[in-house]
Amino acid sequence: MNVSYQILKEVLVNFLKEETEKTGLNNLVIGLSGGVDSALSAALAVEALGKDHVFAYCLPYKTSSSKSLEDAKKVAGFLGINCEVIDISPYAVAYLNVFDHYIGNVRFGNVCARMRMVTLFDLSAAHGALVLGTSNKTELLLGYGTWYGDMASALNPVGDLYKTQVWGLAEYMGIPKEVIEKHPTADLWQDQTDEGELGFSYRDVDKLLFEMIDKRKNKKELIRMGFDEKFIDEVTRRIKANQFKRCLPVVAKVSDRTVGVDFRYSRDWGL
Amino acid sequence: MNVSYQILKEVLVNFLKEETEKTGLNNLVIGLSGGVDSALSAALAVEALGKDHVFAYCLPYKTSSSKSLEDAKKVAGFLGINCEVIDISPYAVAYLNVFDHYIGNVRFGNVCARMRMVTLFDLSAAHGALVLGTSNKTELLLGYGTWYGDMASALNPVGDLYKTQVWGLAEYMGIPKEVIEKHPTADLWQDQTDEGELGFSYRDVDKLLFEMIDKRKNKKELIRMGFDEKFIDEVTRRIKANQFKRCLPVVAKVSDRTVGVDFRYSRDWGL
Repeated sequence: MNVSYQILKEVLVNFLKEETEKTGLNNLVIGLSGGVDSALSAALAVEALGKDHVFAYCLPYKTSSSKSLEDAKKVAGFLGINCEVIDISPYAVAYLNVFDHYIGNVRFGNVCARMRMVTLFDLSAAHGALVLGTSNKTELLLGYGTWYGDMASALNPVGDLYKTQVWGLAEYMGIPKEVIEKHPTADLWQDQTDEGELGFSYRDVDKLLFEMIDKRKNKKELIRMGFDEKFIDEVTRRIKANQFKRCLPVVAKVSDRTVGVDFRYSRDWGL
Repeated sequence: MNVSYQILKEVLVNFLKEETEKTGLNNLVIGLSGGVDSALSAALAVEALGKDHVFAYCLPYKTSSSKSLEDAKKVAGFLGINCEVIDISPYAVAYLNVFDHYIGNVRFGNVCARMRMVTLFDLSAAHGALVLGTSNKTELLLGYGTWYGDMASALNPVGDLYKTQVWGLAEYMGIPKEVIEKHPTADLWQDQTDEGELGFSYRDVDKLLFEMIDKRKNKKELIRMGFDEKFIDEVTRRIKANQFKRCLPVVAKVSDRTVGVDFRYSRDWGL
């Protein structure tokens, strides 16, 4: 996983510049959670398009930690970008009221993640902008995110970086230390931490994922390298179980050219 | 486009049965709009899994036409499935109130489509179910739908059928005539019709799309076949401009194996 952060930064900044230009738009919208992934995405966006073309939003729910909001504002301040706070509680609560009993933390967490997606995509229409993704490679592989919620975006500059690489690049780019060093959390309920919920640390799982995915080592080799068998099995199970979140809707193929399957060929369509 | 509706039906019913079984779940959730696409998807779902495993929801907004709701209930009655009505107005209006002026029909239409997505995916968690898609091939190709809204689903049985084929198969399966024969509408504002908004009829565009996409005819050939050049250009423009809605978020590739690009190989992952 040795990378030059200077080169990595250049590649990602160019990616954002080129992919945004291609669409004919020149603005980006991003939700700042106060965490390091969105901070890094926003920092890359500012380098790519300039401060005036990045629209940041903090989208807290009433039980979200005030520390998260504080950190998000700190990131916006550091980057010199405007950051508007929109409280999603009114519409999230209005949704909850559809039911005569509480729907539980997991369902409600997913509802909130999707309400944020609704908000960001709507605001992107207002700004003539693309929605920036903030899911890193560790989250995408483990399926630790909400399908059609925080996993939905137009462009994702950090989706091929493991969490440990996000930390490294964020440090390289000067993101405020307290944002990098705090316990990562989806902040869906009080005292939630990613690592507590997953049952292992990002540092440990990233080492395993890199060998499994990028180096394509099989189970026997991984055990020989010293990884715990149960840990390998649990991570493998998670990757498989969440494959659907990394796919387009499955369309029943009944013709010669099917959307999401064998349409479209760039040679036919000139893109 | 000649197909045997009997065979088409069998293929699609098997698709739903097999793809649902694969996930270990045995329920499907669907939003019934009162239109023919969702009626057909629901009919196929009932054939595949049985009445007790299909959970239908009508999700009107307060300005939605009462005729749409009536037709949706008619479909549910015809299929013998339970259909619950959830008015999305409280949370859609709560979202609108974030802004101090009306956000316009197009933005609000997309917000409503996404609020319906939030609802259906949440209910799918409640039922241990998959969300059924209802976007047909014509809509998918023209990009006539909301990204991460009605275009979001887990399984889509009708995504490879042109609108004209949806009509044909719906008729074959005995869907109530008034649902098949009415003017298709997204019902996002009063008196909206798809064909009025698109500027051409489904019958005309389906003929062109079939030759362009399935038969891969180029512009010269299409003109020779008698299609109008402006019409060809407009449809081509639409297909290209909406390609992003048929794709996963674009991830910046910086490693050997990237989610959505070259991960995952079934030979490595045994699926």
